[in-house]
Amino acid sequence: MKIIVTGGAGFIGSHVVDRLLTDGHEVLVLDDLYLGKEENISHNAENKSFSFIKTDITEQENLNKIFNDFKPECIFHLAANSDIGAGAYDMSVDLKRTFGTTIAVLEGMRVTGVKKLVFASTSAIYGSLSGKLSESSGPLLPESNYGAGKLASEAFIASRANVDGIQACIFRFANVCGPRSTHGVFFNFIKFLKEDPTQITVAQNGKQAKPYVYVLDLVDAIMLGWQGGKERVNLYNIGNQPIVSVNEILEFILKEKKISNIKINYTGEPAWPGDVATYVFDDSKIRSLGYKPKYTATEACALTAKQLIHGV
Amino acid sequence: MKIIVTGGAGFIGSHVVDRLLTDGHEVLVLDDLYLGKEENISHNAENKSFSFIKTDITEQENLNKIFNDFKPECIFHLAANSDIGAGAYDMSVDLKRTFGTTIAVLEGMRVTGVKKLVFASTSAIYGSLSGKLSESSGPLLPESNYGAGKLASEAFIASRANVDGIQACIFRFANVCGPRSTHGVFFNFIKFLKEDPTQITVAQNGKQAKPYVYVLDLVDAIMLGWQGGKERVNLYNIGNQPIVSVNEILEFILKEKKISNIKINYTGEPAWPGDVATYVFDDSKIRSLGYKPKYTATEACALTAKQLIHGV
Repeated sequence: MKIIVTGGAGFIGSHVVDRLLTDGHEVLVLDDLYLGKEENISHNAENKSFSFIKTDITEQENLNKIFNDFKPECIFHLAANSDIGAGAYDMSVDLKRTFGTTIAVLEGMRVTGVKKLVFASTSAIYGSLSGKLSESSGPLLPESNYGAGKLASEAFIASRANVDGIQACIFRFANVCGPRSTHGVFFNFIKFLKEDPTQITVAQNGKQAKPYVYVLDLVDAIMLGWQGGKERVNLYNIGNQPIVSVNEILEFILKEKKISNIKINYTGEPAWPGDVATYVFDDSKIRSLGYKPKYTATEACALTAKQLIHGV
Repeated sequence: MKIIVTGGAGFIGSHVVDRLLTDGHEVLVLDDLYLGKEENISHNAENKSFSFIKTDITEQENLNKIFNDFKPECIFHLAANSDIGAGAYDMSVDLKRTFGTTIAVLEGMRVTGVKKLVFASTSAIYGSLSGKLSESSGPLLPESNYGAGKLASEAFIASRANVDGIQACIFRFANVCGPRSTHGVFFNFIKFLKEDPTQITVAQNGKQAKPYVYVLDLVDAIMLGWQGGKERVNLYNIGNQPIVSVNEILEFILKEKKISNIKINYTGEPAWPGDVATYVFDDSKIRSLGYKPKYTATEACALTAKQLIHGV
């Protein structure tokens, strides 16, 4: 199948691209390399089923032309401002990069008649809702502009699916870890420890805990949901067990870096406004399609620390 | 209190303005008169607590200046593309008029430090979700661009409330009826019967049924929720009982017009893609604050037919 992957040079997108190529699909990556990196996809350069265009997908006419020329059957839309903290205060970042990219993709699909969409959504749409979060949990009051941009995207995907006859798979990702990540708690800790291995700053009290999914397990789940979804709009949480705290992640990193003596400064504050401290995901729907992560959240975090510090 | 009402010359907005003036507030109406009408507010022209500016509120710099000059304590944001069918195929209508207006209001509030927001949302955000719809029902998959634009608005109101410290009251309106309405089933039937009283076209089989709220009851509910809401984001369904079918509404209108013999053509199709046929609202939350509609949905529809045909 001919597939366009937006954000395909990013952390998660590039792993999706690898999997689609392995499965025999023809893949065109669109990425403006704002957060994505060419090195994440350069190993596919010789593959005849792979191509890449550096482009800002919110340039609508240009995007329509690309859709028209490549004639994709399906769009995997992963392009977004994945650095939540970066858009915390400035709403325009997520309006353009998280929401505006989705609107451009939907409009491009309408104009060129593409009927299948896979969309990367997020746990952030649930805000600080308590309890075990399922796809039907509510009310949805996101606390970050990133979460708002993703929920706004879901909303228009649903209405366009109804009007334009698109079939959509929306995946709400828990926290994702693994090689090629460009931000987030692993990335930040490793960067800060390189600058000063004697001390580290930790948001809140470090006990905030989330279900981490290893990126290759996430890709497995996406493939299962994409192939198994029969509704017009298919909605899936992709989670993992157990929840892992920031303190545990720091321990994994310190162990890999062989640092035994360090001063930890707890801020008592969220990393950014809208950083949800702790949540638990009900992902029984995607598990019913056969999703069985190879790594628990704890194993995924330990492995990520090892891979990011010592190389894959 | 100094209050700005966006869309204040519209059907619902103008009734909100009347009530705020009656309650002693100082009100500035912003409306581009695209769907609103000056005659809906002209009776307030001599009131010293009332003023009106004809303006497109998505012109951000101009809006910021108006906020800065008037110094409102609260914004009632009702401006939207309330004609759902008009934006059914063209996503840009609701992107600008339903969603873009909300973003402009949020940005204006941030820039000028306004901290209170009342927002008119809609049952359309629930899509065709079955069961009795409460504020926490999900998943939210709107089927119209109007519903998508309102849900997208809710999403950014929630994130900005968190970041900018705004207190917001979001009201999800059921179908609203009463004098000054500019579109919808009452308006259309009366218009078509004026053109040809011998026949009428009815969407689907006419049995689609919704909870209609009389506009003055709705305004009561808004005032109760606004004054009673203690959370950062307060979410309320405003509904009514029972659900009234399109066939019943047609009967009320035919009775008022003294038409006894008419050919009814049922289309078997929704009025527009995304027109949700039937839904039931759980509005126990706003009722717990004292909301007790004066008119049942059936009474509200009968009264509206009478008022729209014979004048208020």
